[in-house]
Amino acid sequence: MKVKKANDKKEYLFQQVYEYVLNNIERNEWKKDDKLPSVRSLADQLNVHRLTVLRAYQLLKQHNKVYVKDKSGYFVMSERPIDTNNNDLPIVTAYNQKNHLSDIHQHTVSYNFSQALIDPNLLPNQFLSDYVKKVFDLHPKVLATYSTVQGDEELRESLTQYFGNQYKTPLHKDDLLITSGSQQAIHLISQAFIKPRDTVLFERPSYSAAIDVFRARGANIVTIDIGQNGYNLEEVEKQMKLFKPRLFYLNPTFHNPTGMTIPPEQRKKLVDLAEKYKCLLVEDDAYYDIYFHQPPPPPIYTYDTAGIVIYVRSFCKYISPGLRVAAIICQSQATMKSLLASKSLIDNGSPLLNQKIFLHYFSSLRMQQHLEKLRIALQIRKEIMEEELAATSWKWLSPQGGLNLWIELPDGVSAQELYSKAIETGISFVPGVVCDPLEESTSFVRLSYSYVSENQIREGIRRLLDVINAG
Amino acid sequence: MKVKKANDKKEYLFQQVYEYVLNNIERNEWKKDDKLPSVRSLADQLNVHRLTVLRAYQLLKQHNKVYVKDKSGYFVMSERPIDTNNNDLPIVTAYNQKNHLSDIHQHTVSYNFSQALIDPNLLPNQFLSDYVKKVFDLHPKVLATYSTVQGDEELRESLTQYFGNQYKTPLHKDDLLITSGSQQAIHLISQAFIKPRDTVLFERPSYSAAIDVFRARGANIVTIDIGQNGYNLEEVEKQMKLFKPRLFYLNPTFHNPTGMTIPPEQRKKLVDLAEKYKCLLVEDDAYYDIYFHQPPPPPIYTYDTAGIVIYVRSFCKYISPGLRVAAIICQSQATMKSLLASKSLIDNGSPLLNQKIFLHYFSSLRMQQHLEKLRIALQIRKEIMEEELAATSWKWLSPQGGLNLWIELPDGVSAQELYSKAIETGISFVPGVVCDPLEESTSFVRLSYSYVSENQIREGIRRLLDVINAG
Repeated sequence: MKVKKANDKKEYLFQQVYEYVLNNIERNEWKKDDKLPSVRSLADQLNVHRLTVLRAYQLLKQHNKVYVKDKSGYFVMSERPIDTNNNDLPIVTAYNQKNHLSDIHQHTVSYNFSQALIDPNLLPNQFLSDYVKKVFDLHPKVLATYSTVQGDEELRESLTQYFGNQYKTPLHKDDLLITSGSQQAIHLISQAFIKPRDTVLFERPSYSAAIDVFRARGANIVTIDIGQNGYNLEEVEKQMKLFKPRLFYLNPTFHNPTGMTIPPEQRKKLVDLAEKYKCLLVEDDAYYDIYFHQPPPPPIYTYDTAGIVIYVRSFCKYISPGLRVAAIICQSQATMKSLLASKSLIDNGSPLLNQKIFLHYFSSLRMQQHLEKLRIALQIRKEIMEEELAATSWKWLSPQGGLNLWIELPDGVSAQELYSKAIETGISFVPGVVCDPLEESTSFVRLSYSYVSENQIREGIRRLLDVINAG
Repeated sequence: MKVKKANDKKEYLFQQVYEYVLNNIERNEWKKDDKLPSVRSLADQLNVHRLTVLRAYQLLKQHNKVYVKDKSGYFVMSERPIDTNNNDLPIVTAYNQKNHLSDIHQHTVSYNFSQALIDPNLLPNQFLSDYVKKVFDLHPKVLATYSTVQGDEELRESLTQYFGNQYKTPLHKDDLLITSGSQQAIHLISQAFIKPRDTVLFERPSYSAAIDVFRARGANIVTIDIGQNGYNLEEVEKQMKLFKPRLFYLNPTFHNPTGMTIPPEQRKKLVDLAEKYKCLLVEDDAYYDIYFHQPPPPPIYTYDTAGIVIYVRSFCKYISPGLRVAAIICQSQATMKSLLASKSLIDNGSPLLNQKIFLHYFSSLRMQQHLEKLRIALQIRKEIMEEELAATSWKWLSPQGGLNLWIELPDGVSAQELYSKAIETGISFVPGVVCDPLEESTSFVRLSYSYVSENQIREGIRRLLDVINAG
């Protein structure tokens, strides 16, 4: 065992300087708008080359931790965890754990185009209530019992069969782990596989709440564009080679927010690349069941023979979001073992009641019937929204599934400004910057058509257009 | 803003060397039983003083990351996340996330003295089933709805009143946050307030699953002894002054595992110390309701005027562990804001159904009646266990509440060896080393009397004594 020379040491010193500055910012030793030490003085101070300090400052700028003012130097950006206008500062400063989507949802609005959730009126409420009573008859002690950390065995068996039949890829029940919703699954994966300064590859744009999880974990974020033809795989390989990401968080089916689907031929190749560069693929498949014409291609995990994919599938969104039940599929026993250890630290297992209720609904015929009706209802809502927008110069690709339109606003309309005005008028949507892992402002917005009624879509979009026209 | 000189730089270099070595171990670049570079060569390599490297190696040894062999140098201990006997190694190495208690509970045993849980036969199962139906009548769309991130408002209001009446300390409903069990509450706090290398103060011994959460987070752990008279407060102050811990995780009422209760006069002083040294007090109050003679003193949070306490109260353990509902009380708005941000990243809110079921039970008279019966049942089980052990030379202080006996084994009996043999014979308990934040082996064991029936206690303890007598 040897410490590698030269390059390794350079990299080591660079990382240490980066961390030194970041720590001072995060612990609020160096405060918002403070000037950083000059490159020269910090280099002298820490006994490193000036270029090392400069490189650290530049990366910190890229990560939005510092900014440059004219030519007078670097200053602390410091998105403080707590609003500095708030007098009630905590005695112990918290670290930055921000959920941008959640912040948007704080606003009470009449026309909610920001929630990528299903309108509760479209969910099988009465039917589920009846099922619950059945669950208690079958399992009278269900509330007295902890689930195993991995999740209810009966539910895992049922899901194993379902996936096996659906994709002709046999699974074992121990390849499954039940989590309390997919948000928890993503957080769990970040806990097991990411440490501060590890690199994570993201699609650009991507799902904001996932970006926020890895950002809160302290990951370095690099990106790959996603477009109508999926990824440019050469670019993917370049990023994997260059940045050695520990994982690639992707959303290849009715992608959130763009609605794109990665074509089957790219899915197989992606697994090969991931294996070659030892980069976990975290496949978040939140919208698989919501297709408007034909079912999407099989998930990427079905091509996985090396145990490099961690698949996250959420079902409850379409049945009963209140249950908070999602499944992770992972065919590497060793990777599963690590996920289980994290799950036991995070909450020691999801509640059994919720798993049993979901199981009984999932294994009934009603589930598929419900999904069929739901797809039609959502397609109608999507078409109504598109109809209302047809006369504008807004641009989008009509999605084949999922819950969102990803729209490019016309020249001269700022997504951020529109957002501020819309919120005041009681309309919410997600401005594109929130979906950008690099946090650059864009002219895109995400409008969800799933949470509001048909009439609300018509009325809300008209009002939104009025906001623009009013200037 | 200035970079402080001399000491700061020394500390900086030390931390960087520490981190450099640790990273190499954790990423498995330096493998188990590899020899570390000599102090001299690493010092040359990284251009630091030899004493800096030596200090880093010593701290790594203290943290059980390396060990010393004779005088031939330092070697990697590397508790690998994955069993090295396991051929199915993951492609991407996971970070170490170990839950020792959970590992113990993997064993199927006939006499379970390791689970500090309530025997399901002592829980109000039938009554809760009836309640669930009421919940669905009252809230027909409960499964279609997400809870807010902070938790159901009605439940928080009800808990606010309860705590206000109980301790004559008024709270606001926004001082409460609902989590999925207290394990999640502890994890949540670690996410919001701890970064790798931050210091956390623990009682010694302490609750193993909490130690594991902060260890997985990468915290440095320092300790304070807990005994019959509580803490030595001078020692607490010394530790706070010396190590500047960001938080003190404590379990001051029927302490797990020792059963001790911190006296009222120490509670007030502890809050003052915490405020003086800006150290959050994380008061985990899992056993408050289980007292055998008189109710324990009011929680430490009731003395808190500075917003320095985060109080974690679990109720469901005594009613329906399957519900996974616990509450955090925190009277600093800013601290609460940070906890909420973390909660939204972790799972975006606990399931509403579970909160509503708990609420309806909690606000009924049945709750207090149930607790009264439960206390008596547990006291009887405790006394039976003590009776069975009376003739031995095992030593313990009879606890006034809680679920465990903390027992010192006689000279010559190793807790670890006894544990291995007991597991083989179908008896489980928690060896003391698991409860030691510093992981030193001790002659103590934790026996829980809450999960097994009276007959099982008698039979299990007899068999355990047979294991010892058989040598």
